[in-house]
Order: sequence, then structure tokens, then C-alpha cells
Amino acid sequence: MTSDIDISKKNAGYFAAELIQDGMAVGLGTGSTVFYAMERLSERISSEGLDMIGVPTSFQASMRAREYGIPLSVIDEYPSLDIAIDGADKIDSSLRMIKGRGAAQTLERCVADAADLFVVVADESKMCEKLHGPVPVEVLPFALGLFERRIRELGGIPSIRLGVKKDGPVITDSGNFEVDCDFGFIDEPELLQSAINNMPGVLSCGLFTEFTDRTKVVIGNENGVNIF
Amino acid sequence: MTSDIDISKKNAGYFAAELIQDGMAVGLGTGSTVFYAMERLSERISSEGLDMIGVPTSFQASMRAREYGIPLSVIDEYPSLDIAIDGADKIDSSLRMIKGRGAAQTLERCVADAADLFVVVADESKMCEKLHGPVPVEVLPFALGLFERRIRELGGIPSIRLGVKKDGPVITDSGNFEVDCDFGFIDEPELLQSAINNMPGVLSCGLFTEFTDRTKVVIGNENGVNIF
Repeated sequence: MTSDIDISKKNAGYFAAELIQDGMAVGLGTGSTVFYAMERLSERISSEGLDMIGVPTSFQASMRAREYGIPLSVIDEYPSLDIAIDGADKIDSSLRMIKGRGAAQTLERCVADAADLFVVVADESKMCEKLHGPVPVEVLPFALGLFERRIRELGGIPSIRLGVKKDGPVITDSGNFEVDCDFGFIDEPELLQSAINNMPGVLSCGLFTEFTDRTKVVIGNENGVNIF
Repeated sequence: MTSDIDISKKNAGYFAAELIQDGMAVGLGTGSTVFYAMERLSERISSEGLDMIGVPTSFQASMRAREYGIPLSVIDEYPSLDIAIDGADKIDSSLRMIKGRGAAQTLERCVADAADLFVVVADESKMCEKLHGPVPVEVLPFALGLFERRIRELGGIPSIRLGVKKDGPVITDSGNFEVDCDFGFIDEPELLQSAINNMPGVLSCGLFTEFTDRTKVVIGNENGVNIF
């Protein structure tokens, strides 16, 4: 049985997949809604002979895309992409976001940065008035103690994300830690993003505020999508 | 035979080593001038029983310190340090610097950030009116193409640093690339540092502009040192 939320995600993912045209290089994000987009791209490749190349944002995205038979390359070969399709954990009305629940925000940022158009697919539960909740940050393992000190000084509460190994840390695709930093409601996301990015030992902050002028948000619902 | 420049470096390194007191946790940088400081710390540990712990900024620093018999720990255990001793490639009159010739600037920045006092040891050739020349940047391997594109858009010329393997890249201690980005003379180092730090795929920029209020620069010469 498919739930309402699955139908919403599928509607968003399928809509995004229809934006792709022959010859495009396409960033492929991580997460259940993007996987619906991959499913539809796979169908289009088989049925229409759609000619595209995918650039995945994580090992997980890469494995899923390969299962769907989508031809793949890497961002280093395609530093300019036509479209990147990705998900988000929180999206405000200015199209600023929090990402990183999949611990892939560093490569997701590279892929978004390389793309002419950033298409974010999500269900309605991800929209919010004001960004809030934990901000995921990828941190070099040796810098953890120092990073926690600096986050606390900034008013945040850092929690290292734990993984499948009991009490062991999640390890990112680049071999680092993922630290969820709770600042409650975030008044000035641009400033917080820059402050965190400039902390020593940080690879990438889960706040995405710099792509709003080339972002299209596709919110799925039971009957179709809304575009922002 | 010891050259004038070696005497200058030795004078700077030895002066810095005299600043260390019993019970201190001390950052130990990478480079020939810092190694003179380690030499003198080693003597003081043997002759005076100086009680200190060193926190190295690279595998190279760690190997050298171990040879000198200096007790070591890591920054994650010591997120607050009393003093960090390190070198620099260029230093201007406001005590802003370019670092990273040793490809260790990411951990060097963590150690400097953790320290109450940042003691920079160098010879006179490192002082300059205005910062100029290549700015080393540690970059995730997968982001290289995108990073080069963004640096060129900012007016810089990126060159990936090549290593001991003929035509192969230098690999940093964290497994990444070191890219030397030439911007000529740098008008606003703070702005350039922040712009580079905020580029996707960047771990750390070799511009060090944020520590000037707790920096002491020790410039060695043939007869002693000058302090800035």
C-alpha cells in the first residue's frame, strides 16, 4: 500500500524528471523523493531513449542510479551541470534550506553550485515559516572537540550523529563526522552559514542560502505539485 | 657550515621555545624554523625537566617532535592550548599571513584557533608590505574541477600542487589536494579568505587573517630577534 506521503513524494520526483531534456548533465541527489525522480528518468531512458548523464551526490545516490540504469559521471568531469535535482529537510518561503540528514551536504553543495538550475523536490512537511532545528555540519574528526567548543560559543548545541555501529559516529563519504548543531529558530541563516563555514575543521554546513536565485522548489501533494 | 638564514631561523625558534612554561599545552607547527623551537624544547625537557605537552599540526611535525622526545597529544583532546608555535610563508605589517607551503594549513588553523597566543616564527624574508603570491587551498579531490572554475571567476589562477610521484598531486594528511591559487597582490585578504572558505569543496584557505589580535611574530636575524 502506498501512503499519501509516498504519493506526494512520487508526484514531486516525477515532475522533476520531466524537466530533463536530451543532452543534459543532471545532478542526482540523495533521498526518497529524488529516488522517485530517478525511477521516472529510468523509464524515460528506456521508453524515449532520453540521452542524459547523471552526477550523483553520494555513494547512496550512485548505487541507486546504477540500479536504475542511469549513465553516471562525476562532478570533477562535469563542473557545469544543467540541472541538479535534490531534496531538503527544511525550506523557508525565501527558498533557503537546511540539508544534510543524509550526511551528504558537502557534495550536494558542490553539485548545486555547479548547476544552472537547482530543483528541490519535497513533500509539504518540509516547508516552514522560519528555518529551525539541527543544522548538520561535516567536520574533520581531529577537529571535533574544537568545533564543539566554537558551536557552543555561538549559542548552538552540538550532537555528533551516531550510526549503525552502536554508539559509533556516522562516517561521511569523505571519511568525516556529521555533527547536528541545534540553534533553535534561526534569525539570520546567511550569517550563521558563513560563521560555521569559517570555523576551522569544517567542510560544509547544512544551511543552503546562496542558491535562491536559481532554485525551483517542487512540493508534491496527493494530486500533483505546487511550484515555488 | 650554518648559513645566515639558518642562524636567523634558529634564533627565532629558540626565542619561541623560551616562552613555554611548566604545565603548558603547546601547538607545534610544521617547518624548519619551528623545528629549531622543538630542538630547544627538547633540551629544556632534558635539562630543566620542563613539563609540557605538544599538539602537532601535521604528521611531519609529529614525527619530528617524537624524535626530539616531546610528549604529544592531539587537538581533539586539547581544544584549548596555551601557545601555538608555527611558521608562515608571508606576513604583512598587520600580522595577516599566507600559510600552507607545507600543505598543513587546515590543522594549523585548528591549532592556531585553539591557542590563547599564536607565536609565529620566521626569518626576515617572510615579511612583506602587502600579501601576494599563491594562496594554498586544501580541496576535496572530487571538487577540483568546480573549484578551479570558481577561483578563475574570482580572478585567480589555480595550480594543483604536484608531489613526489612524477606529475601526481600532493596528498594532504587528510587525503585531499593542495591547490595554489595566484591572485597577485591581495587588496583585501579578509574578504578573499572568506570567499574561498565559502566555496564548495574547500577545507581551508592559506590566508590567516583572524588571529592578529593574539599573534606575536618573532623574526630571527643573525644577532637575535625582532618582535612584532
